[in-house]
Amino acid sequence: MSLQITILGCHSATPRVNAHPTSQYLEINNRHFLIDCGEGTQRQMRKYNVGFSKINHIFISHLHGDHFFGLIGLISTFGILNREKELHIFGPKGIKEVTTLQLKISKSHAKFNIIFHELSSKKSEVIFEDDKVTVTTIPLNHRIYTNGFLFREKENSRKLHIENVQQYPEIQTCDYHHIKAGKDVVLESGEIIKNEELTLPPSKTNSYAFCSDTSYKEDMVPIIKNVDVLYHEATFLSDREDLAKKTKHSTAKQAAQIALQANVNQLIIGHYSSRYKNIELFKEEASTIFSNVILAETGKKISSS
Amino acid sequence: MSLQITILGCHSATPRVNAHPTSQYLEINNRHFLIDCGEGTQRQMRKYNVGFSKINHIFISHLHGDHFFGLIGLISTFGILNREKELHIFGPKGIKEVTTLQLKISKSHAKFNIIFHELSSKKSEVIFEDDKVTVTTIPLNHRIYTNGFLFREKENSRKLHIENVQQYPEIQTCDYHHIKAGKDVVLESGEIIKNEELTLPPSKTNSYAFCSDTSYKEDMVPIIKNVDVLYHEATFLSDREDLAKKTKHSTAKQAAQIALQANVNQLIIGHYSSRYKNIELFKEEASTIFSNVILAETGKKISSS
Repeated sequence: MSLQITILGCHSATPRVNAHPTSQYLEINNRHFLIDCGEGTQRQMRKYNVGFSKINHIFISHLHGDHFFGLIGLISTFGILNREKELHIFGPKGIKEVTTLQLKISKSHAKFNIIFHELSSKKSEVIFEDDKVTVTTIPLNHRIYTNGFLFREKENSRKLHIENVQQYPEIQTCDYHHIKAGKDVVLESGEIIKNEELTLPPSKTNSYAFCSDTSYKEDMVPIIKNVDVLYHEATFLSDREDLAKKTKHSTAKQAAQIALQANVNQLIIGHYSSRYKNIELFKEEASTIFSNVILAETGKKISSS
Repeated sequence: MSLQITILGCHSATPRVNAHPTSQYLEINNRHFLIDCGEGTQRQMRKYNVGFSKINHIFISHLHGDHFFGLIGLISTFGILNREKELHIFGPKGIKEVTTLQLKISKSHAKFNIIFHELSSKKSEVIFEDDKVTVTTIPLNHRIYTNGFLFREKENSRKLHIENVQQYPEIQTCDYHHIKAGKDVVLESGEIIKNEELTLPPSKTNSYAFCSDTSYKEDMVPIIKNVDVLYHEATFLSDREDLAKKTKHSTAKQAAQIALQANVNQLIIGHYSSRYKNIELFKEEASTIFSNVILAETGKKISSS
């Protein structure tokens, strides 16, 4: 199992020639999710070879333009491409009304169903679950109702320790299913072979927490504890902590403090304010607190396995 | 007086890496207009150095996504840039409701007033007029209510023929205003000096007709007769005239037929379907009917004076 994040955009506020607003493509345990959808996301998807037909679930953190103004264009393009599969959109209450009105007014007659999952809870909740992955909200603190999202691979079954199993010719292939499910084996002699002898632990599961936009908010720490990869916004450096507080954003240092407390393996920072020309300064600042920091950069792929 | 068109996007349907949906920046007689606003227009404006603060009037031909999905992002950015000047938006009925809802839901609190001029007439009408320019709608025939726009410089006053004027020492500087306005001069002797002797004709006025999207529609010809520059969509080549008819678009040949009948000086074609890889074919086809054809290309500037 593995996860891979493709950064489609990682800058704040307004799109510029080489600064695209927030959007990420997440592949996790063979699921394909789009997270946030700033203006121009569909162009970025084409540029970085994200297959449009793979996307069945879109998660929108909040309804500021730099996180969702590209959604209507993407949905409209899905229609032009004759999509037929259902599309699930998770986002704050209001997203259905505005999207539906835009589709109506632009006469974008989609043949596919759009299923809106509108969010309004201020508590963390599971909003998606299948046999591979769960997605849980991470309530954030911004100027507008905002959620982060925690994507977690489900535990796989244990793996056969095939060399050990083959030492018991009495064990048949049809027994493997039970063994992988954790059961012991009783031989005809009455001897019990413990499951631990016949299996290996399941492969490691991966988890990814996406947190944008938010002020410094320690109470997210228990929700994201020990995740493999944390994306946490860092709009400012500490020189403008006052502005971060006022606009309900974070500094690179604050993002690193959250990563440290949550004991994550890897921290990605992004959502840089355009006032900073050298984004390496964000890494320098965060690295004084937390060692494994990666700068989000448009087109960058970040993996964990 | 002069006009200059900057093509910000000229492709149809969906944005691609190097194919931007319709938007044009028009400078005419010291006025600055944005025409249509597909997704990504604000990025294109930055790329081609279109000053955001110069834009006070935006004209939207119709509410298909590739002509207006970039509008909300541009308005939102105006707000972030602390714009205070009024913004006038001309477009089909419905544009106010959808824009207002998007602004409300994204909490884009603009300090500036947005004045919507919603259009619903099927007849050509003057929708903007000041001392420099008039803008008139050109009713088009598309799958949705659509207008083209005719931009016309106003006639200037006649110019002083200064050498002739100076032959009459009795004529004072304070008389110039009346002479430029077309009046004759009566000397103290009673002699009448005809205005034609004292003035030269006003400089030529320019006009630009923007027609996208539309099926072949001959009754636009009287409205755009003799314009200097005509932009007419050419989504298809004649090989797919059937598809042009079905989708209410035009072929390159049809665009050229309109240009010929309207006796325009210059024809720009664009809005190419993505099915064609070589847009030179559009010029070849149009040029069999009309000689002065220019292909719209992203970033191209086209002037007339």
